[in-house]
Amino acid sequence: MFLKNAWYAASWSKDLTDAPLARVFLGEPVVMFRDHDGAAVALEDRCCHRAAPLSRGEVSAGRLRCGYHGMLFDGTGACIEIPGQARIPAGARVRAYPVVERWNMIWIWMGEPALADQDKIISLPWLDDPGWTITPGRLDLKSNYQLVIDNLLDVTHAAYLHRNTLAADPREATEPTVTEPLPDGVRVGRWLLDVRPPPLFAAAGGFNENVDRWQFVTWHPPGVVYLDVGCARTGSGAPQGDRTQGVSFWSNHFLTPQSETTSQYLFAFARNFRLGDDEFSQRLFEGTRDTFLEDVEMLEAQQHNLVGGALDRTVDLLADTAQLQARRMMGRLLSAEAA
Amino acid sequence: MFLKNAWYAASWSKDLTDAPLARVFLGEPVVMFRDHDGAAVALEDRCCHRAAPLSRGEVSAGRLRCGYHGMLFDGTGACIEIPGQARIPAGARVRAYPVVERWNMIWIWMGEPALADQDKIISLPWLDDPGWTITPGRLDLKSNYQLVIDNLLDVTHAAYLHRNTLAADPREATEPTVTEPLPDGVRVGRWLLDVRPPPLFAAAGGFNENVDRWQFVTWHPPGVVYLDVGCARTGSGAPQGDRTQGVSFWSNHFLTPQSETTSQYLFAFARNFRLGDDEFSQRLFEGTRDTFLEDVEMLEAQQHNLVGGALDRTVDLLADTAQLQARRMMGRLLSAEAA
Amino acid sequence: MFLKNAWYAASWSKDLTDAPLARVFLGEPVVMFRDHDGAAVALEDRCCHRAAPLSRGEVSAGRLRCGYHGMLFDGTGACIEIPGQARIPAGARVRAYPVVERWNMIWIWMGEPALADQDKIISLPWLDDPGWTITPGRLDLKSNYQLVIDNLLDVTHAAYLHRNTLAADPREATEPTVTEPLPDGVRVGRWLLDVRPPPLFAAAGGFNENVDRWQFVTWHPPGVVYLDVGCARTGSGAPQGDRTQGVSFWSNHFLTPQSETTSQYLFAFARNFRLGDDEFSQRLFEGTRDTFLEDVEMLEAQQHNLVGGALDRTVDLLADTAQLQARRMMGRLLSAEAA
Repeated sequence: MFLKNAWYAASWSKDLTDAPLARVFLGEPVVMFRDHDGAAVALEDRCCHRAAPLSRGEVSAGRLRCGYHGMLFDGTGACIEIPGQARIPAGARVRAYPVVERWNMIWIWMGEPALADQDKIISLPWLDDPGWTITPGRLDLKSNYQLVIDNLLDVTHAAYLHRNTLAADPREATEPTVTEPLPDGVRVGRWLLDVRPPPLFAAAGGFNENVDRWQFVTWHPPGVVYLDVGCARTGSGAPQGDRTQGVSFWSNHFLTPQSETTSQYLFAFARNFRLGDDEFSQRLFEGTRDTFLEDVEMLEAQQHNLVGGALDRTVDLLADTAQLQARRMMGRLLSAEAA
Repeated sequence: MFLKNAWYAASWSKDLTDAPLARVFLGEPVVMFRDHDGAAVALEDRCCHRAAPLSRGEVSAGRLRCGYHGMLFDGTGACIEIPGQARIPAGARVRAYPVVERWNMIWIWMGEPALADQDKIISLPWLDDPGWTITPGRLDLKSNYQLVIDNLLDVTHAAYLHRNTLAADPREATEPTVTEPLPDGVRVGRWLLDVRPPPLFAAAGGFNENVDRWQFVTWHPPGVVYLDVGCARTGSGAPQGDRTQGVSFWSNHFLTPQSETTSQYLFAFARNFRLGDDEFSQRLFEGTRDTFLEDVEMLEAQQHNLVGGALDRTVDLLADTAQLQARRMMGRLLSAEAA
Repeated sequence: MFLKNAWYAASWSKDLTDAPLARVFLGEPVVMFRDHDGAAVALEDRCCHRAAPLSRGEVSAGRLRCGYHGMLFDGTGACIEIPGQARIPAGARVRAYPVVERWNMIWIWMGEPALADQDKIISLPWLDDPGWTITPGRLDLKSNYQLVIDNLLDVTHAAYLHRNTLAADPREATEPTVTEPLPDGVRVGRWLLDVRPPPLFAAAGGFNENVDRWQFVTWHPPGVVYLDVGCARTGSGAPQGDRTQGVSFWSNHFLTPQSETTSQYLFAFARNFRLGDDEFSQRLFEGTRDTFLEDVEMLEAQQHNLVGGALDRTVDLLADTAQLQARRMMGRLLSAEAA
């Protein structure tokens, strides 16, 4: 069961052109493209005539023509031309999904179009601010999207799952976190004071000595998570609010369910230093890729183990507070939508 | 749901030898071979003893011996020998299917054997006439067979799906067709007068100027479709019945359901010129293969999109008259058989 | 439906180390490892916290630590440490399965632990006797385990399925067998007197002339089968009990269901001559591998043909007496367990 009346991240802006892009969201085939003004369009990827995927067709003058029999659809999903036939039959249309381009991304609304309020899209200004450089990516994950939310809302697992790539201090496993409910999400985080810097941060900030690290995770339902992580030389005042002696990233994660067991995963690191330094971007990408694949492998293994409802019998730990709050909020939203 | 009491194309004659040939038709495993007289035999491909596929056994003296425990079956499906055991138990037999060899093909009857009337096999004389050369082929298709019938009964889709390989004139998309119900099928077709010849025809007929093209498609239930297609120099009298100044092919298509979502697809071009010209046959094959693969890709994509009964919500177009008549006739035949 | 209260072969001793070994038995994910004393441990391969496979973790000091959040489990399945959390919640444990190491193998009990009586493990002394050399192997089979039991309890199929690799005499197909019910299994076998020796035996025993062959198969429920097979020069007294002029093998087979359609298959040849001759072991392995693959291919093809309960309609032959007795005994055991 998925939340339908919500904005989901559909694509990075750079990946959407005037060529049809086929995706599956919430179990529905979707085709996206840019119209003649460059505006994003999302339609049902299934022709109303014989169910051909419209994504096998072609866009011209901002309209999408089916590649099988040539029916032409405009951005509202209406068929506006049928070769060899003057009259357009009633019902000759496919579903159109509200889409908005914001923060360097395309956002899609899979539910009732009348409810699609653009103001409900989460604010992520660092993703399209010229003062920041972002490194966006995408993958198809064989896991339910909520397992990823659980993963991201828990900062302690780095000590085990990422002990070879990320963890720099045993306190990562044990230092308590503080969970803070938000009106439209959950925030969890902590400070690790006077610890060794992880290699990537040490290289980025030129740290030779211990640092104060911060890790703050914010989730907004259903599928947006961003991490504010960084470190500064111990004693330079970061815990008190002065980050000028430190380096930091925003690590952004966007989960969109494809099915109960698969998800689209968009991600990006955003930084406000070494802007436009492609070589550093590449190093940052490679330095985090292995960590990321550790998560992917574990999430897919978990999903495999969950066939048959095995999660019903699990126990929860102290470190699970944030994810339990998030699951409870999702439960309320799903119940409200079903009612 | 499939029509059981009907003749289906099982194999090209050339592909059936005295080695067992394993196939699946209408959800049932079938093994075929030639007996000592060269006559075609079709049996259930599942030993009555322990369900071993008989197709893993060997034919000798026209009988098929199971490769697991050596039980020997004759062409009626009766077990006639059990190693180490004198008495043949009652029930030691597998199902035998009526088969007929005609028109260079093996035809199989999957329903009640007593109803298998050979006279009901459609007449396709050009397939074994020495005045014709045929180029037969076979593939396994991941699509319901009716989607292929739909495709073949619609000549307009060439303008879009085959615009890079086949279509030579924009009128292909718009010129109306005439549908003619037959007592045992549907016929649909049209003339395209004074058009540019498609490259393959131009090469075959040496046409430098415009031609009159004809496209006539005949379907016989459940799975036989043949196309009478060709062209002649404009003004040479072809529309009036004189094809002597033209070139033409019979394009033959035989669909046999394997499951609700897969089908065996036998096909052949037949021509009555350049007889036995292997180099031309090869060029003809290659010239049509790409077109054919465009259909295969679209049919499999359609099938993928049809999971969950999405075809219930489709609209029909004017060009669908023939396929709607065909589907209606299939519906009547299926209802009659169920009753 | 599987027998739960029974010992199943889980692994060869040599394959179990202190690294976690992931397996599936009777539909349940199992992780096995050796603790600090070298004793075998088997736990549910699914963390009680978030269902992560424990087999992705690490063993240290005989305990298994989950690779996701670091929970530590002892050999009884109890969680004994949670990073960052002093109190262990009630229910923080995974299932532990009774295991016993015997006959060079690890045996596992998938049912009620209180019923796990070690004395019920079948006696297979030749597997860990210094007077014998064994050549153990393992494979995953896409077939229900009972099809393999059927196969092994039937010595006649060699004449057909293995006619190119094993069978040396047409009497293999026809010579009757004697079936003997045991209190805890079934035994079936026969003598083939004065026959040509199979190539492998001829090479091993240096036979130039005819031999007396014996083939005796013993099954113990649910999944243990061993074959006592060999031959001796005809007239040397083997049928009367003097095997000193012959060569023989014990061919051991251990089936453990993974699912209704897949099984773990452990196997080993044991011999009491040419001890420790690795080159001969290799030749023996290669000489039997092709035979073995013939069985595997047939069993998997049978399984494929059995979808939909087709075995309900089969007939039985005289040579099936032993497998019918075995299936009846399994039926009684399953009914008793269900009651």
